[in-house]
Amino acid sequence: MKSFRIGLLGFGTVGSGVYRILEAQRAQICARLSEQTGTRIDLSIKRIFVRDINKYDESVRSLMTTDAQELIDDPEIDLICELIGGDTLALDLMHRALAADKHVVTANKMAIFTCQNSLADMARKKGKAFRYEASVMGVVPIIRVLKESLASDEVLELCAIINGSTNFILTKISEGASYEQAMEIAQQLGYLEADPSSDVDGYDAMYKLGILTQLSTGHFPSSTEIHRVGIGTITAEQIESARALGQKIKLVARLQRTDDRLLLSVQPEALTSEHPLYAIDGSLNAAALTMRYAGKLFLSGAGAGSYETATAVLGDILSIAAQG
Amino acid sequence: MKSFRIGLLGFGTVGSGVYRILEAQRAQICARLSEQTGTRIDLSIKRIFVRDINKYDESVRSLMTTDAQELIDDPEIDLICELIGGDTLALDLMHRALAADKHVVTANKMAIFTCQNSLADMARKKGKAFRYEASVMGVVPIIRVLKESLASDEVLELCAIINGSTNFILTKISEGASYEQAMEIAQQLGYLEADPSSDVDGYDAMYKLGILTQLSTGHFPSSTEIHRVGIGTITAEQIESARALGQKIKLVARLQRTDDRLLLSVQPEALTSEHPLYAIDGSLNAAALTMRYAGKLFLSGAGAGSYETATAVLGDILSIAAQG
Repeated sequence: MKSFRIGLLGFGTVGSGVYRILEAQRAQICARLSEQTGTRIDLSIKRIFVRDINKYDESVRSLMTTDAQELIDDPEIDLICELIGGDTLALDLMHRALAADKHVVTANKMAIFTCQNSLADMARKKGKAFRYEASVMGVVPIIRVLKESLASDEVLELCAIINGSTNFILTKISEGASYEQAMEIAQQLGYLEADPSSDVDGYDAMYKLGILTQLSTGHFPSSTEIHRVGIGTITAEQIESARALGQKIKLVARLQRTDDRLLLSVQPEALTSEHPLYAIDGSLNAAALTMRYAGKLFLSGAGAGSYETATAVLGDILSIAAQG
Repeated sequence: MKSFRIGLLGFGTVGSGVYRILEAQRAQICARLSEQTGTRIDLSIKRIFVRDINKYDESVRSLMTTDAQELIDDPEIDLICELIGGDTLALDLMHRALAADKHVVTANKMAIFTCQNSLADMARKKGKAFRYEASVMGVVPIIRVLKESLASDEVLELCAIINGSTNFILTKISEGASYEQAMEIAQQLGYLEADPSSDVDGYDAMYKLGILTQLSTGHFPSSTEIHRVGIGTITAEQIESARALGQKIKLVARLQRTDDRLLLSVQPEALTSEHPLYAIDGSLNAAALTMRYAGKLFLSGAGAGSYETATAVLGDILSIAAQG
């Protein structure tokens, strides 16, 4: 029997989802892993770092610590799963985890963008895995698809809705809500960050497009290479006149490759009803890919949510555990 | 530097696609693999088994042999890629390849169904990889998604169009063609097998649903467990009256799990315009998944085609090469 121990950094929306799914599915997950690898594998969360233990349920407190270094120093922990968010402490802890020879899984697009994915280089040098499927498009396995399924192919165009919050807000406005009302509903449903500007001004989508661009072209773009316009400039009149033409305004992330040029943008676009992203409403995410050899591919699913995003995190963790 | 040599069985639609993509993309593919693994990897096709060498272009003949055993006995060959089809010779050669300690990649749903995926067990025992992404839904990475991305989750429902030929025929009939005309066009475009009954009677979709069922539930169903009705029973009047109601008739593969019951079917269904598969016309494939934790996920793309299917085969080959 082989043990595989996870150290969890953060116990918010996604972290608690990972914990609860593992709690409910651990027997099946371990059985599946054991069958895949031919070795009995016992996988579990050993320790959880949080800032304030008293905020949480009695049932999980025994696993919790306020000392993140404790997880990194623990020789029994094989993998650090970073779900704190932000690009300061999170980035520092991921570097320290790799330096301590642990695999790292994260959902943190901002940290990856900030370090231009230098974590991936560091992981390679250390011979450890660094995976971040949940950082882009929630349950939609766009990273695995680009990196593994389509590894022999070239992306010619990618056109995607990768920020569920703004898509939800625009959907609400097109249904008749004012901008302020739509923002309020989104905030109540937990679709917006405490500081909503990351979503509304297109930064969140920019981080994600940066990650997808590196996977598609090998080049990690800086923020100056991505033309970025948020949804704050859209007026109710524009949405109304788009609707009169049978169109919808969406915040679209776009990568286009023409010969040696690479065009990257995050901006509101009016889409006709024939467009594959036209029907993607609410907090859904979707990507339409045009590949040199594979042709067109379309993927959609929940772009956020506790359990939804947690399945993407767990997909990464289980892949690493299966490879030993 | 590490070499990774492929032995190709068959040089038909998909086999020649694999060869041509590798020819065009080999430098990029090897660079990508080397970057991923930190070791310089030189990947190439070493030998191709065909029945009649004279049928092929001079440029590839030097790689060809009519003796399949030669590939299996070659100690330099790491991986056998089976693209002959059928369940007699192909199945025998895959068994022999695994017995000879080679990885195996195939697109052969019929062979996997016939042996109830015993090749996967054999590969596990031998410590070799057995991958078959291209056997179901062409470019759509449904197998990787179920097996890896959603490994922590449970499929509650799967509803899919997984046979492009019959979908193409039904689309043509709904556009006004007769059944015979539609069959003829499909045959001319290479969408139908020499013996079209595998597509038309729903066997091809049944094989694929069998594979998806094992990935979703762990159980490989026999043909008696899948309720199967082909498209031959559909009349032009039924298609017309569906259209009058704003519906389309499609050959739908379905898996439904309710408590301890598993319902499996391949049959024509009339879909309303709200159904996620309604817009899937022509030879496209698509799957709508409902997961316990990840919620709804939708994937679509080309279900057939030389280059399209070849990218799925190559995705498997490159994953194996990257894992060494």
